[in-house]
Amino acid sequence: MKLNEHYFELTESYLFSDIARRVKAFAAAHPDQKIIRMGIGDVTRPLPPAVTAALEGAAREMGQRETFRGYGPEQGYPFLREAVAAYYQSHSTVVSPEEIFIGDGAKSDLGNILDLFSPACTVLIPDPVYPVYVDTNVMAGRRIVYLNASGQNGFLPLPDPRVKADILYICSPNNPTGAAYDRQGLQAFVDYARENGALILYDAAYEAFITDPALPRSIYEIEGARQCAIEFCSLSKTAGFTGLRCGYTVVPQELVFEGHSLRAMWLRRQTTKFNGVSYPVQRAAAVALSEEGRRASEENISYYRENARLLMQALDKRGIFYTGGRHSPYLFMRCENGMGSWQYFDWLLENAGIVGTPGAGFGKNGENYFRLSAFGGREETKEAAERLLNL
Amino acid sequence: MKLNEHYFELTESYLFSDIARRVKAFAAAHPDQKIIRMGIGDVTRPLPPAVTAALEGAAREMGQRETFRGYGPEQGYPFLREAVAAYYQSHSTVVSPEEIFIGDGAKSDLGNILDLFSPACTVLIPDPVYPVYVDTNVMAGRRIVYLNASGQNGFLPLPDPRVKADILYICSPNNPTGAAYDRQGLQAFVDYARENGALILYDAAYEAFITDPALPRSIYEIEGARQCAIEFCSLSKTAGFTGLRCGYTVVPQELVFEGHSLRAMWLRRQTTKFNGVSYPVQRAAAVALSEEGRRASEENISYYRENARLLMQALDKRGIFYTGGRHSPYLFMRCENGMGSWQYFDWLLENAGIVGTPGAGFGKNGENYFRLSAFGGREETKEAAERLLNL
Repeated sequence: MKLNEHYFELTESYLFSDIARRVKAFAAAHPDQKIIRMGIGDVTRPLPPAVTAALEGAAREMGQRETFRGYGPEQGYPFLREAVAAYYQSHSTVVSPEEIFIGDGAKSDLGNILDLFSPACTVLIPDPVYPVYVDTNVMAGRRIVYLNASGQNGFLPLPDPRVKADILYICSPNNPTGAAYDRQGLQAFVDYARENGALILYDAAYEAFITDPALPRSIYEIEGARQCAIEFCSLSKTAGFTGLRCGYTVVPQELVFEGHSLRAMWLRRQTTKFNGVSYPVQRAAAVALSEEGRRASEENISYYRENARLLMQALDKRGIFYTGGRHSPYLFMRCENGMGSWQYFDWLLENAGIVGTPGAGFGKNGENYFRLSAFGGREETKEAAERLLNL
Repeated sequence: MKLNEHYFELTESYLFSDIARRVKAFAAAHPDQKIIRMGIGDVTRPLPPAVTAALEGAAREMGQRETFRGYGPEQGYPFLREAVAAYYQSHSTVVSPEEIFIGDGAKSDLGNILDLFSPACTVLIPDPVYPVYVDTNVMAGRRIVYLNASGQNGFLPLPDPRVKADILYICSPNNPTGAAYDRQGLQAFVDYARENGALILYDAAYEAFITDPALPRSIYEIEGARQCAIEFCSLSKTAGFTGLRCGYTVVPQELVFEGHSLRAMWLRRQTTKFNGVSYPVQRAAAVALSEEGRRASEENISYYRENARLLMQALDKRGIFYTGGRHSPYLFMRCENGMGSWQYFDWLLENAGIVGTPGAGFGKNGENYFRLSAFGGREETKEAAERLLNL
């Protein structure tokens, strides 16, 4: 037996277990202090009634001989692929249902897509970053080159034509920084990719938080992107599906490398290693993307946006630099008084009872930064904003 | 961009599209002939009321702020891992919830587990076989050695000590042959694996069809298996979950290769490339594995078993050799009059209006054999048995 030795090159991440340990110790020492947790990027609003009704309806269908469904199409039911295409159409992007693949979440697809590419590819990944981009490539033994994001470039770095890469990752609006590229920024990536025969893996998981129509919600709003980009999106943040598990990946027909269609390769991967998303979840997703579902989801997103506004207001009054908050549920704030990320974590917990995520956990350029999430409840977010103000 | 060139070594499978094309042509030419479809290995009985009630209940939980659930544990909720452990316990196998990983189906896990192993491994795969074992290894560029199954060995071949392999696949009761290993047979594989430092990937997807207590339902009933085997199972055939998507993979603590725990590696893979199974589906699965759920599922399995018995009776009366049917929803019958698989397909469609699956679609040793599925309705199965008798 020969193991995949690249697994042993992975660095263990203790980020969230470290946080949990420190919070536990603090809570034990200060039993009367109310702790406000703003560390985790998970939604908290319940699913809208139309969506739960769709789940229940599909459950009943599965209980009757006449309406029972077994294996579905690996690529997803046509009714859901058409709903995703209509969702794109609603913000003026044309994508064909044939190019849409329903999956169980962007995390799965972002990892699994790498099956199509040689371990000899070089990968360009921004820093700070969602750790999954790094780990999935380390597992395959690919060379990683980092693209440095920082307060100086507003955490929106542009590709350097002297650095050559085969695969580029973009997450916009970004996790963890909340920064969102404008059209010009994304055009620079598309131009770089086309000049270098490279592929963009575009993570649009937070697109629903964009309010400014001048900012692109899809990479396909950029000219030439259909020739060089795969887009990953999910209903997790758009419609509160983190527990239901449903996402979609768009692989345009025009994506041909070395004479091979990536769409055909991905279809082959999915039919071989995947058996489709749960039928009731696909029904729920189709309703979440309908007009009624979108209105309900928009209310939840507005709720989180108001949370973000309260936090931004506090940071603005204190004159603290941050990115995000406007088109994102995340605020990436500069730690006060030049503190390091973990030092600030302890200080903020001690002085305000607020838990956030140290930026250093997302890469070296996250050092001296700190992520706050707007996914909490209104009352606790209000209180957190007040505590930040009164620090 | 450099693609994974091994994708271009895959042979396109036209099995099910070829079948569909031939059936369509036949139906067009014979509009009055009632065609009985026994080709596809998918369940048809609806989910039991307790299971659909669990789905509906979880849907309602997701609609309330107090009971809403976001991201769950990647390995699966403890309530379901405990239910799986109790299910094993009910047929006298001890597996700890810590060793159980909930996934979206055996097909996904069987493909994804290969991420842990080097492309330099040699893989031993029986022929005929579920094509996914072959394709997932071709995609990774592994060398494949075939283990020849045939009518002579009852489609239950044993490992040859002169053939060296790192990874062995066993599916018992088998898809497509329906043949099930006894303890002695599985012990031969476990002994081979331990002598050669090899790993067994044991596909137990059809274990619920076993009626003879002398036949093992889990590889862990065999001494030494915890040191050399990963077991994959699913609620697809056990509880009719092909459309709901839920399975489980058991990675015992004792599985240590080159000093590394496979359980730790698989946990790392799953936390990096997977975000857990849909919460309502996990609730439904836990109920399906409860005593009440098991009683209901057993009724469905008995229904399919009676279908299989009707088909066996017809083949017995005609004196046709076959494997399976007894501990499996599949019958693998020898084609009559020395016909080839596809020749027999056309002949049976023409003369009895029955659609099955040509054995040649599962590998070269499937030639001259033909798979019938017992997953259909009672009336059509009765009619198929009669047509087989009157051929």
